[in-house]
Amino acid sequence: MIEAQQQKKVIELVRQTKDLILREMQKEEVMVKGAANYVTNVDLAVQNFLKEELGKAFPEIPLIAEEKENTGLLKDGVYWILDPIDGTANLILDFHMSAVALGLYEKGEIVFGVVYNPFTDELFHGAKSEGAYLNDRKIHVSDTENFGDAVISYGSTPYTKSEAKNLFPIFYDIFMKCGDFRRTGSAELDMCYVACGREHGYIERDLKPWDYSAGTVIVREAGGVVRTWEGGEPTYLKNGDILACAPQFEEILLKELKR
Amino acid sequence: MIEAQQQKKVIELVRQTKDLILREMQKEEVMVKGAANYVTNVDLAVQNFLKEELGKAFPEIPLIAEEKENTGLLKDGVYWILDPIDGTANLILDFHMSAVALGLYEKGEIVFGVVYNPFTDELFHGAKSEGAYLNDRKIHVSDTENFGDAVISYGSTPYTKSEAKNLFPIFYDIFMKCGDFRRTGSAELDMCYVACGREHGYIERDLKPWDYSAGTVIVREAGGVVRTWEGGEPTYLKNGDILACAPQFEEILLKELKR
Repeated sequence: MIEAQQQKKVIELVRQTKDLILREMQKEEVMVKGAANYVTNVDLAVQNFLKEELGKAFPEIPLIAEEKENTGLLKDGVYWILDPIDGTANLILDFHMSAVALGLYEKGEIVFGVVYNPFTDELFHGAKSEGAYLNDRKIHVSDTENFGDAVISYGSTPYTKSEAKNLFPIFYDIFMKCGDFRRTGSAELDMCYVACGREHGYIERDLKPWDYSAGTVIVREAGGVVRTWEGGEPTYLKNGDILACAPQFEEILLKELKR
Repeated sequence: MIEAQQQKKVIELVRQTKDLILREMQKEEVMVKGAANYVTNVDLAVQNFLKEELGKAFPEIPLIAEEKENTGLLKDGVYWILDPIDGTANLILDFHMSAVALGLYEKGEIVFGVVYNPFTDELFHGAKSEGAYLNDRKIHVSDTENFGDAVISYGSTPYTKSEAKNLFPIFYDIFMKCGDFRRTGSAELDMCYVACGREHGYIERDLKPWDYSAGTVIVREAGGVVRTWEGGEPTYLKNGDILACAPQFEEILLKELKR
């Protein structure tokens, strides 16, 4: 685990990505070369910046990231896990629901996480045994009691459409029991929204490590639960089917997801 | 139709609701009496303010609104159609996706509309033959060509769960053909998001007049299409099944919705 002053430094570094992201958006080539190109540029700019700065501050901690080959990872290792932009489709659409997500993996768990939406200036962070925060204000999962009032956000696994025939019946059954659905397009922000009570649960299959690592410690420190769809502990070093929710809805959601 | 100076005045009045909304949120009784009560207070505060101010500026135009009994409406009449808060569940959840929506109905069509999200300070407006704007910058629907890249937002009709068995198969078929889904929880903001290209289409059944009136003129003036699910013209004075989309996706979406 890193100390309070180091946490502040990391949070400050993540906040500094805002200028990088907005600057890339304003470049003329966004118009010329198209949106996909722009996303790659933003991804790389954020990743290079954080890789360099974290490397200076924590030379002994390697970085695992989306835009990078990751091999030979050890369960007992210590790693930064970075998604330079979570919610890339939203970035292209100018939807304002994208985030920089950075987690600190330590021997099988995430001990520190930062998720920052530069469009709303909302920065979520959590540290093991130290609580979860939105812009330094303590947050907690919702205490809503009835699942019939619960708002559940789901990932639609849009890049593997063949999964939909398995997923939609699950979504339907959950929808019939919960209050309503949301679909934001950013896994890390969904987890943070569970943490601060804007949503009561979030489900998505086949998330990559950087899609759910930072969010996990934020949800748990906010009093919430993070599990695989089988009810187990996520590994963080490989893909996972992820449930994040307020604890009172763990049992009912796992029952629907375990099929 | 109202003149440019009058439009500015109305836009200014709608912007002034921000203080009302945020003030109601800070009152202690939100904590004591609960969220449902708070939403009613915000709804009434916004409605009373706009009813009074619009009444002064346009004494000859009656107001149709959610928190009001509406009887004896005439197709050839002229009315303000107001949703004091569209996206009330989001307001309770502090989701920042709620809007004040005000449309001007004139003899069978909407000629002027304002949709304002006080949490993001985004104000959309449209006036017949005069264009659509986001914070006074002209907006246009997306020119994305392939439906396989299109992001479609849907309303889940959460208050009539029995509809889901009819709706989910439609959603599934559309999902298999489009790029991805969104679900925001605010009909008027979804329509505005179609208008500015953040979404490519939006579908929801059984919307009330104030859920889709203001958005209609904004979508159309941004180059988009608004239809009933049967392909007809919405009436604005009663509930409607509504499609809003970029024009290149009208045919494919109507084909899925007409069942």
